[in-house]
Order: sequence, then C-alpha cells, then structure tokens
Amino acid sequence: MKLKLKNVFLAYFLVSIAGLLYALVQLAEQLRQKDLRISQLQADLRRPPPAPAQPPEPEALPTIYVVTPTYARLVQKAELVRLSQTLSLVPRLHWLLVEDAEGPTPLVSGLLAASGLLFTHLAVLTPKAQRLREGEPGWVRPRGVEQRNRALDWLRSRGGAVAGEKDPPPPGTRGVVYFADDDNTYSRELFEEMRWTRAVSVWPVGLVGGLRFEGPRVQDGRVVGFHTAWEPNRPFPVDMAGFAVSLPLLLAKPNARFDGTAARGHLESSLLSHLVDPKDLEPRAANCTRVLVWHTRTEKPKMKQEEQLQRQGRGSDPAVEV
Amino acid sequence: MKLKLKNVFLAYFLVSIAGLLYALVQLAEQLRQKDLRISQLQADLRRPPPAPAQPPEPEALPTIYVVTPTYARLVQKAELVRLSQTLSLVPRLHWLLVEDAEGPTPLVSGLLAASGLLFTHLAVLTPKAQRLREGEPGWVRPRGVEQRNRALDWLRSRGGAVAGEKDPPPPGTRGVVYFADDDNTYSRELFEEMRWTRAVSVWPVGLVGGLRFEGPRVQDGRVVGFHTAWEPNRPFPVDMAGFAVSLPLLLAKPNARFDGTAARGHLESSLLSHLVDPKDLEPRAANCTRVLVWHTRTEKPKMKQEEQLQRQGRGSDPAVEV
Repeated sequence: MKLKLKNVFLAYFLVSIAGLLYALVQLAEQLRQKDLRISQLQADLRRPPPAPAQPPEPEALPTIYVVTPTYARLVQKAELVRLSQTLSLVPRLHWLLVEDAEGPTPLVSGLLAASGLLFTHLAVLTPKAQRLREGEPGWVRPRGVEQRNRALDWLRSRGGAVAGEKDPPPPGTRGVVYFADDDNTYSRELFEEMRWTRAVSVWPVGLVGGLRFEGPRVQDGRVVGFHTAWEPNRPFPVDMAGFAVSLPLLLAKPNARFDGTAARGHLESSLLSHLVDPKDLEPRAANCTRVLVWHTRTEKPKMKQEEQLQRQGRGSDPAVEV
Repeated sequence: MKLKLKNVFLAYFLVSIAGLLYALVQLAEQLRQKDLRISQLQADLRRPPPAPAQPPEPEALPTIYVVTPTYARLVQKAELVRLSQTLSLVPRLHWLLVEDAEGPTPLVSGLLAASGLLFTHLAVLTPKAQRLREGEPGWVRPRGVEQRNRALDWLRSRGGAVAGEKDPPPPGTRGVVYFADDDNTYSRELFEEMRWTRAVSVWPVGLVGGLRFEGPRVQDGRVVGFHTAWEPNRPFPVDMAGFAVSLPLLLAKPNARFDGTAARGHLESSLLSHLVDPKDLEPRAANCTRVLVWHTRTEKPKMKQEEQLQRQGRGSDPAVEV
C-alpha cells in the first residue's frame, strides 16, 4: 500500500512536469512568432511611402512637330510671342520655325532662345517670282510654301537647320506634323486631339472661308464630306490649320510636299493627295463638332504718326525691339 | 511516515497546480498584449502616407488682378481662349472678366469654367447713349468704361459678381490691378514686371498711337516725359495697357474711376490723376526700354459666304460654338 501511493504521486509528478514544460515551450514559441511579426510591421512602417502617381512619362507621348512659316512685319514679334506661349503649354512639342529670309534674323533668334521650347530654326527666302507683288491680294500666291517644304526636308534628314536642334528625328520616331501659321489662334486642347494621329487627322477651323467655320462632315465616325463654300469638290477642301499628318507616313512618302503652283485653294490637296484617301481621314474634336482653332488675322498697324515723327527726327527709338 | 510522505506530495501537487495556472495566465496576457500591438501597427500601415512636399508658397506673391472688358463678336471666343492661355502661365493671378451684356453669356461662362484660372465673372451692359453707333470710328466713344468701373466696384466690396470668386480681396491684401483688353498681345514677362508695383508702374506699349511704340521717357530711373505723337501734354499720355496700379492705393482712393465723358485719349488720365503724380510713376521693363505688350487688333472676319449659304439653308451648324 505504501509503495502504491508513492508510485501514484511519482507518476503524477513526472506527468505534470512534462505537461508544464510543454505548455511553456508552446507559449514561448507563440511569443517569438508575434515578436517577429511586430518587428516586420515596424520595418514596413519605417519604409518610405510609395511615390505618388506620376503624370504619364512624356517619353511615352508621340512628338508633335509644329511647322510655322514666318516673315518680317510690324506684328511679327507679337504674333510669335503669343504663339510660343501657347506652344509652351503643350508637352512633347518640337517647334520648326521657318523664316522667309536669306538667313536667321536677330529678332527671331532671340525669341526662340528665350522661348524655352525645343525648337529647330530654319530659313529660306521665297524666290522673287513666287513673292506677292505690292497690292496683290493675298490669295493670288500662297505664302509659306518654300518654308513648309524646307521643314519637310529637315524632317527627311536633308539638313538646313540654322539653330536649335539640328538632328532630324531618328528612324522609327513616333510623331505627328502640324502646319501652324503664326497668326491663327490655337486652343491647347487641339494638340492632344492630333497627338495620336495614325495617318491624317482632321477637324473644323473657325472663321475661315467666309464662314463661321469650315470642316469635315462626319457620319458613323467617318468623313463623308466637307462643309465649305469654296470649291467643295476639291480633293481635300480643308484649311492648312485643319489637319495633321503622322511623321512615319510623311517619311514613307518622300515625294509628298506642297506645290506652290497648285490652283488657288489646292495647296493642302497638293500635299494630302500623296498621303491618304479622303475617306480614310481620321475625324477628331468630337467627330468634328468642336472648333479648337480659329483663322484669326491681325490688322496691319498704321504708322502715319511714326512717319511724321521720323521726318522731324523724333521717331521711335530704333534700338527698342518691337 | 506513510502520512508524511503523502502530505509532501499533496503539498507539491497543490503548489505545482497553482504555479502552472499562474504561468498560463501570465503568458495568455502577454499574447493578448502582442495581438493588440500587431493590430495597431497594421492600422498604422493602412493609414494613407503624408502628402509630398509642395512647391514654394505662391501665397508670398502679391496677387495680380487682371481686368478684362469683353463684348460679343465673331472673334470673341478666339481672343479669350488666347488670352486665358497666356494668363494661365502667370502664378498668383486673378482674372476679372467683365462682359458688356445684361448678364453672363453661356460662351463666356463655359470658357471661364474650362480655363482653370482663378476668376470672377462680372457683367454690365453699356448704356445705349454711350454705345458706339453703327459706322462710328472706334475712337469717338471709349469702349469698356462701364465694365472696368464695375470691376473697380467689385474690388471695393460693392459686389456684383455673377460667377467664380464672389468675395472681394480681404482688407490688407497685397496686389496690383492691370487693365488688359482681350485683343492685345501680352508677354508672360510683363506680369512679373508689374507684380511689385508700389503705387503706379508704367512701361512701353508696342504698335499703338500710329507709332512703333509709345512709352515713358526715363532719366536716372525717373519718368521725365512720354514718347507719343498724340497730345503729348495730356496729364498721363499712356495707353490702357501701359500701366498697373497697386490694389491698396486703389482702395485708399474710392473716387478713382474711369470717366467715360473724358475727352478722346484722356480716359487713362481720368483714373490716374486721382492716384499719382506723373513724376512718381515707377518705370518698369528695363527703364521702359523693353516692349512686352503689343496693341494688336484682330480683323473682323468676312461672312459673305456664310450669308449666301444661310440663304440656301446650308449655313454653318449653329449648334457648333465658334
């Protein structure tokens, strides 16, 4: 009996010790796990927060090549300042400014240098034979033909840059080419409409051709005609400001250029007929229902008082650039 | 002896049970604490990260209040789009656009809403007696007088805003007021020239008054005369685009406003003579040797073809805003 009781307690003693140790080991392991988790979480908190979402990489956008012919006149600097400030609002834009002059002028060179834009400065004088005679109405001879073709030559690696970016776009560059005269008015929205042009995109132009606007007629997302008063049967009755051409397409058609001898109103067609079938034009600006460019024209300032004062030797200081 | 041994084991039995229970309770409490800590840390991680550092406080700059009278015409939207895009390049600018109309028009309201600018939309119709008659040359009656005065009223807490920011600048606001018509051309540099105006600052204006430019003559940093062909003896022979006034000065002189009955070319003087002595004008733009604003005028577009097509029921779609 004595032994019996002792053995019972001894057995219990050993069992309880074992149980106690087991429980302690288990709990210690749980504590270690949780300490590990805590230090992990603390490390996560110390890690810097993820950078805020960036605007889409400009490198991802096709470049917009804006071709602007310009010529010396009283309002030239005002027009170019106004236009350059509009272009400065557009990402991934390259301005091809082409002077109608034998070489670069100080006024335009200084303006480009101060513009902060990526630019290429070109210059080509319009041959005398093609120049507008004194008193001739503007429509007799189209202006800017030589200059736009010089820009096309530069894009096609034929050189000619006098300042700015002198290397043409490398092969395979994604881009679009737009011919923007220096007197029109451009909404910044227009440039995003043209950026992803596949071949040739089109949209309405305000205050042109004697109408509130001219532009393509669109049905089911396709161009089916044109709203215009002047020769609606021209192959492409669109204004210079009303279309953009993809750069790869222009480079694939080396003969596509402007023909200065084309009949009145056919200058745009002389380029576009090399590039696209009218039915394949890509309507933009909400199926051509939004006017985002206006064919504005700036009055020629009268200089009567200037001439009077100059005769008296009191003319405006010529050292001040206007 | 039998009993003794029994008691020893019994005592150990009770003590070990108590110890075991105590250990379990302790450990369970530690586990609870750590679970709590873990859920706290997880909550911290879910909290959004702090906003990234902002660009330097524009609040440090005086506000430029640009007052622009405008009236309905074919080129109105083009002009306002062009101007609003220029103003969007200027920090800390507040556009006060005042329509010459009984109330706000949808065209201007939509344009302001889309501009992204801080603006106040005002409207006041020019009384019939002061309106330009058909065929009258522009200089007979100054345009925009009522509209500029309405903007001055708003700045002086007399209300009248129809949309946008309706509360006038709080007392003590540092700012400058500039009267910018919707057809001129403004370099973005001009606004930084005027921002720190103490009383009234002045600079040249290009292509105005029949001259290449009009502007103050400056000697030793002071205005000693004016280059102008028209009535050089006017108190202030400056164009509306050629000066800016500090906001505190305008508020300190509640009677300073434009007098529509002033003689031709004296409209600017009718305001400025309340505010400053000509010799205290502050020359800007490199002592008035740089032209940063041009008095450009946009041609009225011809609508001959539009009228022809409308007679044939084929006019431009009136649903398209131009």
